[in-house]
Amino acid sequence: MTDAPKDRPQVLRETDDEARALARRLLRSARSCALAVIEPESGVPFASRALTGTDVDGTPVILVSSLSVHTRALRHDPRASLLAGEPGKGDPLAHARLTVVARAEEVARDAAGRANLRERFLRRHPKAKLYVDFPDFAFFRLVPERAHLNGGFGRAYVLEADDLLIRSPAVAALAAMEQGAVDHMNSDHAEAAGIYARHFLGERDGDWSICGIDAAGIDLAAGDRLRRLDFAAELSEAGELRGVLARLLKQARENEA
Amino acid sequence: MTDAPKDRPQVLRETDDEARALARRLLRSARSCALAVIEPESGVPFASRALTGTDVDGTPVILVSSLSVHTRALRHDPRASLLAGEPGKGDPLAHARLTVVARAEEVARDAAGRANLRERFLRRHPKAKLYVDFPDFAFFRLVPERAHLNGGFGRAYVLEADDLLIRSPAVAALAAMEQGAVDHMNSDHAEAAGIYARHFLGERDGDWSICGIDAAGIDLAAGDRLRRLDFAAELSEAGELRGVLARLLKQARENEA
Repeated sequence: MTDAPKDRPQVLRETDDEARALARRLLRSARSCALAVIEPESGVPFASRALTGTDVDGTPVILVSSLSVHTRALRHDPRASLLAGEPGKGDPLAHARLTVVARAEEVARDAAGRANLRERFLRRHPKAKLYVDFPDFAFFRLVPERAHLNGGFGRAYVLEADDLLIRSPAVAALAAMEQGAVDHMNSDHAEAAGIYARHFLGERDGDWSICGIDAAGIDLAAGDRLRRLDFAAELSEAGELRGVLARLLKQARENEA
Repeated sequence: MTDAPKDRPQVLRETDDEARALARRLLRSARSCALAVIEPESGVPFASRALTGTDVDGTPVILVSSLSVHTRALRHDPRASLLAGEPGKGDPLAHARLTVVARAEEVARDAAGRANLRERFLRRHPKAKLYVDFPDFAFFRLVPERAHLNGGFGRAYVLEADDLLIRSPAVAALAAMEQGAVDHMNSDHAEAAGIYARHFLGERDGDWSICGIDAAGIDLAAGDRLRRLDFAAELSEAGELRGVLARLLKQARENEA
């Protein structure tokens, strides 16, 4: 169940699979987000920008400096929300965006899973290698509690945390093999990323590579561009990955032939 | 004096005129902003996107629907902040952005100045004509209290409200003549907007027009593009406008000759 208020105006649409898929795509393809936190000294809601990635279970992750207002705020009060979805061309409000209401959890330096999270984040944001290990930088997981999708005028939906997260039992096994699978695809099947991006996401040509693999899909990057290709269904075991990636490639090639 | 906390980490730079000018430019050229408010039912900081303009005194203005979370929130608790500055290409954090901590004031339908504010907003956002007069839409002025500028890595500044607002005694007189002056420039000096955009803002050619004039500068629009040209100094009386616009045009033409 969602915690959304019961007395909200009745302009929300029934949340359907299309809305859920759009919400996941917005969140999983965000390079940065606008973050809202409570400023400790004043209590005011404070908006700022943060570099964004996702953990292997779909939880959004930010990399922030202790010297910033938002980091001090999150250490004082973990309530936060993030806004994903850039306005782009045309009417800024015609572009879909997603507000995720979340609870921030700082990732300890010695936490299990931090090494994988760090590698995954750096594949998405290679320039962050310059400062990720500075002592004042930290990762926070922004654990979703609910979300509000605005798909454009008159298209508002409320979502639950489960609509955004990856609940597959294969999450941990895939995390353990993620770096190896990414390296294998980008070296032995270097053409695959570009084929996925072109065929399934309508992208133009570019120097595409895979920067993330999890139980729900793959992250594709070409320079500044970041796109998310979600699988038709989450993998239920890690061993399915090879077959799914091969079938997607075969399907794209057949359709393009 | 700013209300910023005294115990913040000492990584702020001394606020100089260059930082102030950048902050004003970010705020005055925003088409939309990320807004942070306190959600009434939950108390969580809630981030969303809102269509943005400025009033004639530099105060940021948003046009919002009563059916949205942020409007309900602002009517319940006027504390807010807005984030101006889009990430654009390359590293999202290399792009300057500005957080303005503000107090929201709803603009009453019969308020003095609302007609001018509405016209000014619609010149900036012509598509908003479709819904601006719907009964559930309202303007809010987000009166700045202080601001935080992040001009890219290691370039953080705190600003005061006065750094962002236009304090000229000519504000009201210019508001009264704004629509006429805009119409005059766009019809009798139709080439001026493009010359200003190209010469002073480095813009490429396009169908530029002037969409706002105030005591501190002019707003220029070409399709989706919006640029702000601030005057070297605020006008101290409305009668100076014609001479300033003519001198800028002359200067651009001489430099381009």
